[in-house]
Amino acid sequence: MEPDQAVTRPGTLYGVGLGPGDPDLMTVKAHRLIAAARVIAYPAPDDGPSFARSIAADLIPEDAREIPIIVPMRVERFPAQAVYDRAAEEIAAELAAGANVVTLCEGDPFFYGSFMYLFERLVDRFACEIVPGVTSLTACAARLRRPLTARTDVLTVIPGPLPDEEIRARIEAAGAVAIMKVGRHLPRLKRLLGEMGLLDRAGYVERATLASERVLPLAEAGEAGAPYFSMILLYKGEEAWMLPPRSSS
Amino acid sequence: MEPDQAVTRPGTLYGVGLGPGDPDLMTVKAHRLIAAARVIAYPAPDDGPSFARSIAADLIPEDAREIPIIVPMRVERFPAQAVYDRAAEEIAAELAAGANVVTLCEGDPFFYGSFMYLFERLVDRFACEIVPGVTSLTACAARLRRPLTARTDVLTVIPGPLPDEEIRARIEAAGAVAIMKVGRHLPRLKRLLGEMGLLDRAGYVERATLASERVLPLAEAGEAGAPYFSMILLYKGEEAWMLPPRSSS
Repeated sequence: MEPDQAVTRPGTLYGVGLGPGDPDLMTVKAHRLIAAARVIAYPAPDDGPSFARSIAADLIPEDAREIPIIVPMRVERFPAQAVYDRAAEEIAAELAAGANVVTLCEGDPFFYGSFMYLFERLVDRFACEIVPGVTSLTACAARLRRPLTARTDVLTVIPGPLPDEEIRARIEAAGAVAIMKVGRHLPRLKRLLGEMGLLDRAGYVERATLASERVLPLAEAGEAGAPYFSMILLYKGEEAWMLPPRSSS
Repeated sequence: MEPDQAVTRPGTLYGVGLGPGDPDLMTVKAHRLIAAARVIAYPAPDDGPSFARSIAADLIPEDAREIPIIVPMRVERFPAQAVYDRAAEEIAAELAAGANVVTLCEGDPFFYGSFMYLFERLVDRFACEIVPGVTSLTACAARLRRPLTARTDVLTVIPGPLPDEEIRARIEAAGAVAIMKVGRHLPRLKRLLGEMGLLDRAGYVERATLASERVLPLAEAGEAGAPYFSMILLYKGEEAWMLPPRSSS
């Protein structure tokens, strides 16, 4: 009856968390949205394949349109505003034409992710839905085989790129501690925890749940830099950080 | 060749995160393990149905043996050691007889969960595998439609049952804040955040992702107690806590 009923109904922007890397740790909802997608967007570095796309690769329909968001891998991945401006307009055109757009997000879209840069550009204009995912935080705790938090523990999550004095103060005040985004900060963080007398309370995980995963006491981690997707979990109150190693399957 | 080759191979204990409540937010791995399970254990209150079981109900095989772990719902759910002792022995008997046992865990098994009480009793005797799940932390951020953390934000996760002065100090020192386990502490926490001048920066979510979910500014949450599964997210640096409301689908 209304004259604009014939106007195309805009699509929905989905921010879909993929979990830490093992495709089996995608949610059922992520699985279904990706398998049915006509348009898929994902972050990609300018020097190699997209980690997010690799997690979902087996599900992406062959005829889906793909929109890689190529972010220059400069120091700390500082967001390149122009890259997100351009990607948002490309996605907006698909949404306006009536297509849903599934944006693939490593881990969870709203937990230290880059999806927020698209979200803030598009949320006022289009329907958006966030599909949460398994974060590296609990995936790493699972792989270290130690509960992350219990009862009334206060948990502090600290990005590794912060300066020493801030990390030190945060750790001193904290109960359970996770240090994310370890990457090239590994030698510095290892030294800092050593100075604080906490090196034997720290576990280290890189590429959790992937075939290339490494899980070891931080004391045994090499002095070279770590991959971006690496984490330190600190069990401040514990005698020793790791339960007796025992194969899990 | 070895004489004990005829001995039954013990089963594996799986601690399976189910996510925040929407069955679609279970992982593919959780889905598969539950659908194939012969023995399923789960926490249950002594006064009603098991929330964990309800999330997975459609997947549980009809002929699976079920081991409800009935925990008295006393103040703060303090773990009843005898309950876990007994459940662990019941589960150990199944494992020793060669069955895998899938333990259903709300959210993630190692994020403020009760699975650790079984894990610590059985990890030295049996193979254990932890399957991480979507936590209420990021599910609530998704439902509030606000990124939880970005860039170098430090995140502090605070259990609501802690005393006022500790919560106040934690919040004052923190960047992003999540207060878990709000429950009957809602009126006290609301008053505290009001005293700190932060009430208009706080979002409130109960029963995230379930049909009975409620998402609203904390200022609009009633003065009565909240369900156990409720959370406050605090956006300290923001002008107002919530993006323009916009239907998500």
